Amino acid sequence: MTETNHVWRLRKRPVGDITDDVLSLEQESIPEPTDGECLFRLNYLSLDPTNRIWMSDMDQYMSPVAINDPMRGLVCGTVIKSKNDLYKEGDIVSGLGTWADYQIGTPETVSPMADTGSVSVMDAFATLALVGPTAYFGLLDITHPQAGETVVVSTAAGAVGSIVGQIAKIKGCHVVGLTSTDEKCQWITKELGFDKAINYKTEDLPAALKQACPNGIDVYFDNVGGEILDACLKLMNLNGRISTCGLISQYTATGEVAGPKNYAMILMQRLKVQGFIILDYHDRYPEAITAISQWMAEGKIKVKLEVVDGLENASKTLKKLYTGANTGKLMMRVKDV
Amino acid sequence: MTETNHVWRLRKRPVGDITDDVLSLEQESIPEPTDGECLFRLNYLSLDPTNRIWMSDMDQYMSPVAINDPMRGLVCGTVIKSKNDLYKEGDIVSGLGTWADYQIGTPETVSPMADTGSVSVMDAFATLALVGPTAYFGLLDITHPQAGETVVVSTAAGAVGSIVGQIAKIKGCHVVGLTSTDEKCQWITKELGFDKAINYKTEDLPAALKQACPNGIDVYFDNVGGEILDACLKLMNLNGRISTCGLISQYTATGEVAGPKNYAMILMQRLKVQGFIILDYHDRYPEAITAISQWMAEGKIKVKLEVVDGLENASKTLKKLYTGANTGKLMMRVKDV
Repeated sequence: MTETNHVWRLRKRPVGDITDDVLSLEQESIPEPTDGECLFRLNYLSLDPTNRIWMSDMDQYMSPVAINDPMRGLVCGTVIKSKNDLYKEGDIVSGLGTWADYQIGTPETVSPMADTGSVSVMDAFATLALVGPTAYFGLLDITHPQAGETVVVSTAAGAVGSIVGQIAKIKGCHVVGLTSTDEKCQWITKELGFDKAINYKTEDLPAALKQACPNGIDVYFDNVGGEILDACLKLMNLNGRISTCGLISQYTATGEVAGPKNYAMILMQRLKVQGFIILDYHDRYPEAITAISQWMAEGKIKVKLEVVDGLENASKTLKKLYTGANTGKLMMRVKDV
Repeated sequence: MTETNHVWRLRKRPVGDITDDVLSLEQESIPEPTDGECLFRLNYLSLDPTNRIWMSDMDQYMSPVAINDPMRGLVCGTVIKSKNDLYKEGDIVSGLGTWADYQIGTPETVSPMADTGSVSVMDAFATLALVGPTAYFGLLDITHPQAGETVVVSTAAGAVGSIVGQIAKIKGCHVVGLTSTDEKCQWITKELGFDKAINYKTEDLPAALKQACPNGIDVYFDNVGGEILDACLKLMNLNGRISTCGLISQYTATGEVAGPKNYAMILMQRLKVQGFIILDYHDRYPEAITAISQWMAEGKIKVKLEVVDGLENASKTLKKLYTGANTGKLMMRVKDV
């Protein structure tokens, strides 16, 4: 245990892209837990699209990170000291923490992780802690896909999108994934079993979507908003459902964001559009974890992690999420367990 | 029974406002029913915002009216001749017909009306045939308003909006209505019992909404889309619901329509936005008719009709719907029964 802590702090709200002066890495002292708290060392830090929302002062589902506060993140750590019976030294915990080597945990922020069995702690944290349940509830609970229906997923090679598409295949749907490179298109069709993939950066999206969805779209799992949402709205079938999981195309926008031009399809096709945040499903996590663990064991769900070592690289690594530069779940590794 | 029929035909698709050359009134012969059909004489023609959708070739929930075809409308008529056991001469029928003195009915288009008891045929047709069930299912089935919640209704002095607000009051909600004149504001608060009314044409809508909804908005019943939708989205509470019944602000738009700028609130506040068309609820009409009839008898739901005589005035009367010039349900009367 070193005597120095490293903490990324938010110094300004980003305007558009995340520039190098938005976060700064500081050497600080290691905090002491008080009654009811624990101190844990960071093992893994999850990088997620929603991080950009927390940096900004847009309307959002939690308070934004305050200027000069440590940056918020989903974390997996090992307990070093405990002043709460919930935690004992050596426990692996996960939950909502900060971008820091050493940090304080409370029952409101982190929980001990269940035994991960034959799955490594990193894989379990990467898939089961957030993105797996997000895909599971966002698809199944919000849209109820039926066998034979057409499901379109955006950011289909991303952490959530890749799992959404695989669950939709398990449910017997015709699954079309939208992603940003031919390599990712290959991966989701050849490795993950999507029926069709569209490279939205090189193909004519409306035409390609129409061809890939000859029977229209019944379910659209929206991670992006913007023009892709508009193209999907145009093809939605009667009583279609849209699960609004993310609007990543808007997060780095400056100024007002245009709304979807084809919003009227909600009326014309009697669509249901519903937003959700995985935190709302906290009580039902075990259901998702059980199902996804089993599908992983059966080889029906494959996951890909992109692991980057060293907390000092977190700021520049995060930017990959907003340029389509990563495939699968993006993760910082500080210390393996 | 005269020997001449009068038929309004659609001559061109309107661009923007409905101009005088969009519909033309023709003298034609009276059609003869064939097997399975009836011939009926028009008593009342309902004028509804959705008429403008049927005239255009926008994406919509039914086929648009073909150029040179008779204009489509909700009608109430009296059977003159029948070649179907479902109808007998003298029966009052209602359903989907055309803007014509005499027209053919089939089981797919019109049904005999139930006995209206102490309510006049015109009042029953006006309230129970379409707008009452629209208000009933669109509010209760889509948004499930709870006592104490804040419900905002646009076109609140209109046929559907005025009933939506009264049903929300019956359910114990704080009800705010948006309308276009001070006179209508007075009517919905003093006569119909809305808690607050906002004149969106003269007041600063975002500020007035915020003041009228100190606890935010739980349910927004959307008849208009556009800037009013955006202002409401901004104030939606966690897990709020938006029932998309109409988007009248868009129907006369030319070119592309901007989407709601605050669409991201669907994600941030986990909203559900759902479109519906009353035709989908056909099987459940009796439930709505029973409830609304009883509330009308108890004085809990009041309705206002604006009745204009003479089918020849239908085209110019329809325009009132898109300028906020009418209050309550707009109806053409051809012959009283």
